Amino acid sequence: MKSPIPDYLRQVVENARPADSGEVAGYIEVLAKADASKMAVALATVDGKMYSAGDDEVEFSIQSISKAFVYALAIQDTGLPQVLEKVGVEPSGDAFNKLSLQRSTNRPMNPMINAGAIATHSLIVGPNATAEQRVDRILKALSRLAGRQLRVDEAVYEAELKDANRNMGLGYMLKAAGIIDGDPQEAVRGYIRQCSINVNVRDLAMMASTLCNAGVHPVSGEGIIPHQSVRQVLSVMTTCGMYDAAGDWVSNIGIPAKSGVAGGIIGALPGQVGIAVFSPKLDERGNSVRGVIMCEKLSSDMGLHMMDISQVARATVRTSAMTITGCADQPHEYVQEVPIFDLRGAVRFAGAERLTRAIVHEFSSSDTEDPGSGRYTNARAVILSFRDAYSLSDVAQRIILENIRRLRAAGRNLVVVDPTRVLKLHGDHVPEDNALRVVRDLAEARRYIGGTGCRAVSYSDSW
Amino acid sequence: MKSPIPDYLRQVVENARPADSGEVAGYIEVLAKADASKMAVALATVDGKMYSAGDDEVEFSIQSISKAFVYALAIQDTGLPQVLEKVGVEPSGDAFNKLSLQRSTNRPMNPMINAGAIATHSLIVGPNATAEQRVDRILKALSRLAGRQLRVDEAVYEAELKDANRNMGLGYMLKAAGIIDGDPQEAVRGYIRQCSINVNVRDLAMMASTLCNAGVHPVSGEGIIPHQSVRQVLSVMTTCGMYDAAGDWVSNIGIPAKSGVAGGIIGALPGQVGIAVFSPKLDERGNSVRGVIMCEKLSSDMGLHMMDISQVARATVRTSAMTITGCADQPHEYVQEVPIFDLRGAVRFAGAERLTRAIVHEFSSSDTEDPGSGRYTNARAVILSFRDAYSLSDVAQRIILENIRRLRAAGRNLVVVDPTRVLKLHGDHVPEDNALRVVRDLAEARRYIGGTGCRAVSYSDSW
Amino acid sequence: MKSPIPDYLRQVVENARPADSGEVAGYIEVLAKADASKMAVALATVDGKMYSAGDDEVEFSIQSISKAFVYALAIQDTGLPQVLEKVGVEPSGDAFNKLSLQRSTNRPMNPMINAGAIATHSLIVGPNATAEQRVDRILKALSRLAGRQLRVDEAVYEAELKDANRNMGLGYMLKAAGIIDGDPQEAVRGYIRQCSINVNVRDLAMMASTLCNAGVHPVSGEGIIPHQSVRQVLSVMTTCGMYDAAGDWVSNIGIPAKSGVAGGIIGALPGQVGIAVFSPKLDERGNSVRGVIMCEKLSSDMGLHMMDISQVARATVRTSAMTITGCADQPHEYVQEVPIFDLRGAVRFAGAERLTRAIVHEFSSSDTEDPGSGRYTNARAVILSFRDAYSLSDVAQRIILENIRRLRAAGRNLVVVDPTRVLKLHGDHVPEDNALRVVRDLAEARRYIGGTGCRAVSYSDSW
Amino acid sequence: MKSPIPDYLRQVVENARPADSGEVAGYIEVLAKADASKMAVALATVDGKMYSAGDDEVEFSIQSISKAFVYALAIQDTGLPQVLEKVGVEPSGDAFNKLSLQRSTNRPMNPMINAGAIATHSLIVGPNATAEQRVDRILKALSRLAGRQLRVDEAVYEAELKDANRNMGLGYMLKAAGIIDGDPQEAVRGYIRQCSINVNVRDLAMMASTLCNAGVHPVSGEGIIPHQSVRQVLSVMTTCGMYDAAGDWVSNIGIPAKSGVAGGIIGALPGQVGIAVFSPKLDERGNSVRGVIMCEKLSSDMGLHMMDISQVARATVRTSAMTITGCADQPHEYVQEVPIFDLRGAVRFAGAERLTRAIVHEFSSSDTEDPGSGRYTNARAVILSFRDAYSLSDVAQRIILENIRRLRAAGRNLVVVDPTRVLKLHGDHVPEDNALRVVRDLAEARRYIGGTGCRAVSYSDSW
Repeated sequence: MKSPIPDYLRQVVENARPADSGEVAGYIEVLAKADASKMAVALATVDGKMYSAGDDEVEFSIQSISKAFVYALAIQDTGLPQVLEKVGVEPSGDAFNKLSLQRSTNRPMNPMINAGAIATHSLIVGPNATAEQRVDRILKALSRLAGRQLRVDEAVYEAELKDANRNMGLGYMLKAAGIIDGDPQEAVRGYIRQCSINVNVRDLAMMASTLCNAGVHPVSGEGIIPHQSVRQVLSVMTTCGMYDAAGDWVSNIGIPAKSGVAGGIIGALPGQVGIAVFSPKLDERGNSVRGVIMCEKLSSDMGLHMMDISQVARATVRTSAMTITGCADQPHEYVQEVPIFDLRGAVRFAGAERLTRAIVHEFSSSDTEDPGSGRYTNARAVILSFRDAYSLSDVAQRIILENIRRLRAAGRNLVVVDPTRVLKLHGDHVPEDNALRVVRDLAEARRYIGGTGCRAVSYSDSW
Repeated sequence: MKSPIPDYLRQVVENARPADSGEVAGYIEVLAKADASKMAVALATVDGKMYSAGDDEVEFSIQSISKAFVYALAIQDTGLPQVLEKVGVEPSGDAFNKLSLQRSTNRPMNPMINAGAIATHSLIVGPNATAEQRVDRILKALSRLAGRQLRVDEAVYEAELKDANRNMGLGYMLKAAGIIDGDPQEAVRGYIRQCSINVNVRDLAMMASTLCNAGVHPVSGEGIIPHQSVRQVLSVMTTCGMYDAAGDWVSNIGIPAKSGVAGGIIGALPGQVGIAVFSPKLDERGNSVRGVIMCEKLSSDMGLHMMDISQVARATVRTSAMTITGCADQPHEYVQEVPIFDLRGAVRFAGAERLTRAIVHEFSSSDTEDPGSGRYTNARAVILSFRDAYSLSDVAQRIILENIRRLRAAGRNLVVVDPTRVLKLHGDHVPEDNALRVVRDLAEARRYIGGTGCRAVSYSDSW
Repeated sequence: MKSPIPDYLRQVVENARPADSGEVAGYIEVLAKADASKMAVALATVDGKMYSAGDDEVEFSIQSISKAFVYALAIQDTGLPQVLEKVGVEPSGDAFNKLSLQRSTNRPMNPMINAGAIATHSLIVGPNATAEQRVDRILKALSRLAGRQLRVDEAVYEAELKDANRNMGLGYMLKAAGIIDGDPQEAVRGYIRQCSINVNVRDLAMMASTLCNAGVHPVSGEGIIPHQSVRQVLSVMTTCGMYDAAGDWVSNIGIPAKSGVAGGIIGALPGQVGIAVFSPKLDERGNSVRGVIMCEKLSSDMGLHMMDISQVARATVRTSAMTITGCADQPHEYVQEVPIFDLRGAVRFAGAERLTRAIVHEFSSSDTEDPGSGRYTNARAVILSFRDAYSLSDVAQRIILENIRRLRAAGRNLVVVDPTRVLKLHGDHVPEDNALRVVRDLAEARRYIGGTGCRAVSYSDSW
Repeated sequence: MKSPIPDYLRQVVENARPADSGEVAGYIEVLAKADASKMAVALATVDGKMYSAGDDEVEFSIQSISKAFVYALAIQDTGLPQVLEKVGVEPSGDAFNKLSLQRSTNRPMNPMINAGAIATHSLIVGPNATAEQRVDRILKALSRLAGRQLRVDEAVYEAELKDANRNMGLGYMLKAAGIIDGDPQEAVRGYIRQCSINVNVRDLAMMASTLCNAGVHPVSGEGIIPHQSVRQVLSVMTTCGMYDAAGDWVSNIGIPAKSGVAGGIIGALPGQVGIAVFSPKLDERGNSVRGVIMCEKLSSDMGLHMMDISQVARATVRTSAMTITGCADQPHEYVQEVPIFDLRGAVRFAGAERLTRAIVHEFSSSDTEDPGSGRYTNARAVILSFRDAYSLSDVAQRIILENIRRLRAAGRNLVVVDPTRVLKLHGDHVPEDNALRVVRDLAEARRYIGGTGCRAVSYSDSW
């Protein structure tokens, strides 16, 4: 059987093909000669599956899309606070090729405008590095992200260098403003060279997917970008990635993105999928006309807008019970009801809060200030299951441990089903002892609570 | 047993208390006389649970926080395209009390600056409505959101009206620019009155929580704000809610928010929790000093940053199998292995893609171009379970239906376990017939596939 | 015999007539209905002669031209320092209807943009005056300047009031900025009413001519605008009178000017002539198309550019001598040579310096460090003639008195011919005594030096 | 006898000495080490007399003062229209080191900001000239203006070149904007070198004086700057010479001026005197603190404000008559009254108009529409005297010739006393014949009218 997803991507391409407006970037001859009929789209999932359609092997220069990844590199090489001293994070409201320095700090407004990108580039390796050293570092990092060896398009580089007066101007201005420490000519040459690296949509989708996967490469499993940098890069792509249309892009498309003047656009949907599109003709803002249409289609079809409620993890709590009976070392009539609180999904505040509420509800009698069912007022043991929880945030961790402390203080035994140990007991000094036991599954829980000879019957919603 | 969450919130309050800098808004006497020692925080979950700490009953004027909700109302009263004609969605980069009209369209940059908020207010009810009519509409809506009858603080209103010259100036400018159709004095009076509505943090948290819950009130279950408006409001809060520090707020706090000059701030975490904080002293940007600290603490503790990967729903696919045997009308040795594909969570592209991959994997033999396990190459029936899927996006729907089509074309019977009918078969003209049956649970699936006399044994990871 | 000047002005009108581009101000109906074929020009000399051509009796509203005169009135009513606290003098670089407040002071940039003109208007009479009181004051002053009773065009006033939203906006903004003390509505209403005063080109030329004549009305001789205000008004007209084209206007036309949206323009050539032109169609800057052409023609033909060297007064010094002889009480051979230094024109530094040089030259012998002719080394008396000097600046006064002191210290008698007493002796405590005599003409000088019986023969350049 | 003017200048210096605020330009070490106690002032009259006081031999770098003269050179080398294509004439309202390009044309706003000055420099010699070639041209021109060989201060040049990042930035920006045609590095190096030329106040005063003298060097008499360029340079100095305080400077000081960061300021008073002051400490706008005070004192004392009415030439007309009698070939009782119209000063429109009025008045009888004295209704001859008129503008020329035509048409003989031929008859084809005779003095006029034997008696105001 064949997957329908490639067919879907072909539809996305064909849906955008009739949009023939816009112009190929004409400011340098090499770009102006691009074949305007080429179109491609690629998706890479956070677990490494790649789908693509159209001219997915056609190479083009990465241009401004490199800014996002070089920003991540700069944070890695220099440290976030040091980067923030040199480049801000605010949308500029101006065109991408304006100087746009912040009044009090002299910083370029953000790393996605040219001035900010040149400043960011100058932070790679070190202030006195040559253009070649910096581009070598960048080329290696982008190649690891793409999963193959990339190379600089020398024709593009030479052509853009000839037309680099405005960027040279920005470079000297940044030097004068104390933002660039080394030679501005080296910084600008390196920046132009970084923009001249050739990629195809599959490369870009894989690079974007690494951002979506918290900086870990989906295929190689290598941690390439630190988690903190990923958050920073995605935040800046959200507010500044699409030039002076940040608000418009956020409300319409709603995904962190970055476009380049050769016709590429990437989108990064955290935790899900990296996307890349390509088509050379640009609108008056410098974004690929068909590329934007493809992104709109993908965002709308896929429900990717980050403000769509359905996107957000809804950790759930299921309350059930295990009835333990027929134990060899207990009277025949022995029946013990053990409540089970089962957390599922990515548990953050909301999930921990729901767990708390469920516990309070089941253990509070109906005549209290905050009345509950009181069903398990007398339960001696409680099972918390994290089998289906794939993460616990800090605050969730703390709230859950506090619940455990309070249950123990009330004299109950706790059994935690946590085969992958998402709950960190030792960080908060909760001793694992007779009153708190971590087990791998419910059978083990049953054995621990009732003894080896008992049977357990679940009343809950299993099949 | 007591919930630890109120204790946590008390810590959030006390953690911020030492920050004594900033100044109470001094431009009108009523605000200047506010008791600067008051502090409060409240959380309201999307299922209606409220937590709060500090001076949670102290009332203060809602001020600019009203802008977010009145924007939602304007979209409802006038339609999003009409609202967008009058008010943009871009961060202005300027102070909140600047005119900031967009060059080509004359629109105020966004609805969170005063000019945009006055224009937005004028769209409530209709162009020739009086201030009283508009505020009546707004007061009713905000009261429904808060879950109690709110009222205008007449002293604040009178005082602000006396000092309304700048806003009156904006009103007349907007009239001159063709943005306001009716009387600018009425629009400004109404806007000031809207800002003078009194609330406490519990009211605000409940209002924010309704935004987080896709516009449905968490307690009353009433749909107050249409889903489309919610997305728009949250998008604009993301890029423009915290004045000229959009980028800074997005990268540091990472939650849609809005602040008011009386010291309140709301944050809305889609799908999770609405938060509200209060403390009268403001920083030089006009945001509550302690309020910002409380928000930072909540965001950091709770892992609420929207670019944090862990926040995003990861729909999962579990592959298992049902072994049907011992059927009355079959030979004794009869054993049928039926693969079960179980989708969980909010299924969007990534989830549907994973399902596709799992199906392709199980049905493709190892010698094909895209080699699989080939385990179920000969399976006559397939079970798809949506019991734990709580939503399907459009693209997921389409991909899954395409999978169903292809499985049917290959001669297999499909049984869909979908008690709440999240899969819409009829929209895409997939006939429900003998080859495609929708059932409520696995037992029914078993009966359908094997007949009433069979038994089924699951090999999968149930307990 | 007939004067050729009216013929010349008719040529100026006809030369501009073919320029048919531009549009009548369309924002209010009354202006939009103006007869676009009307054209006129008028010149008023500083001694009260009026010339005009074209539709010189057609009335139109004065509009922004009033700003120059109301600025003068505000200085008179409030004092220059107080006016400067409220309104600046810098070109704004922005359109005339922008707020354009200076960053540190909140002042509108200058009194020629609308915001500055409204602020200026509010300084007339007093902060709490009504629109009517202020316009009454302005109407009286403008009528005195025009030399006839002017009146408000009520139709224009009513129409502009209906369309006054932008100006109302400016008014409230100014109130908010602390620039306007009273009611902004009254200020704006008054400002609009001031703009609705009807004039014709002859009125305007006479008003401009008063500016050229140091504030003294050329016909009535009445001092209407204090000298200090005139200088301030002309300075501001130079840098801000023609909106955002100050530099262009100064380099091309080079005369202080002010235009109005009804099609009038005035130019004021200090010491020479006030000009006024009228034609309703405006260019995109809001200046009368044909009006600008007429001004260019007048400036170019008349050599009126203020940076043209020939325009500047060149006070001259003529050195001659009086030979006194045939005196009754002297020996027959008695001949006394008395040098005469005759200053002509407006004597400022350059003239006084030339006088000094001439004196030093004539009294120094050829063998000194700064060698001179030494012709009058032995002269006992010296005549200084101010008969043809029509003014002495302060520094000229001081330099000349210092020369007198030094001549007296050298033992020479001074006779000053100064029938109109332009030289102020007493201000600097130079005693008028036997050694310093002020006389009315040379005959009296001769009598004083030689005695009544002498004869004098001039060797100098008389005919 | 000694001139009091040097004493006056010493007072100007001492009056400013107590103002000890401000800072020496600290951005490069060579300037920072300047001796802040040095002060000087110099005046150069348009006829070549130089006065100075203070440290008038101390040299300092010319810095931005060079901009005014290089602008004049660029007009000469390239033509005014070509210069205007590249550099505007509007005040920028921004700091001098901002790019400040005009929106539609990309031109720097004016030649007095750095961007405009670099663009202007690049127009010297030609687009592909080297820095050395351009500076050679500039150095020669400035040396001719100063009247002595100037030289570049190599230490200042080297130091400024090291700190030239901002100007290099501007250079590349200008290249990118299409304003500079050649190598931006050469243009910036040349500009910096031009700023490093050393001068003292006497050099600067002489250079300014050449501007005041219509471009003709006051001492050498050499025409260095074309008249048209002088007007343009003075206009731009008026509106843009003192950075962002154009309006303030025009209304307070009222003289075209330019300042430099080494502490020099020049002022140019057309037709009168060039001034230069020097003191290294600068105010926050970059103007010499004591230099400004000295300029204020000079302007105020000397009545140099260009809007002061008294500054303007007031050509005058004196009407008298010559009575011719006692002619040998006439009857004994023969008496002929010949009116004499005597023009004095720089005659432009106002003077010609006054002449016209006088003629019309004397020849019109009292019963006409425009009634006159009618005194000379029957005069057969008329004398026009230009003996004391030192210039006639075009329009004056035309009006006077038109008067001559009309008098001739009325049958009167014209005798023009015009020893220096200021009246150009032939340009307008007015034939010199029996009815129109040009003579050198009144005696010759008398002989021509009455014959050689007559006597003439003047009734007019001679002594």
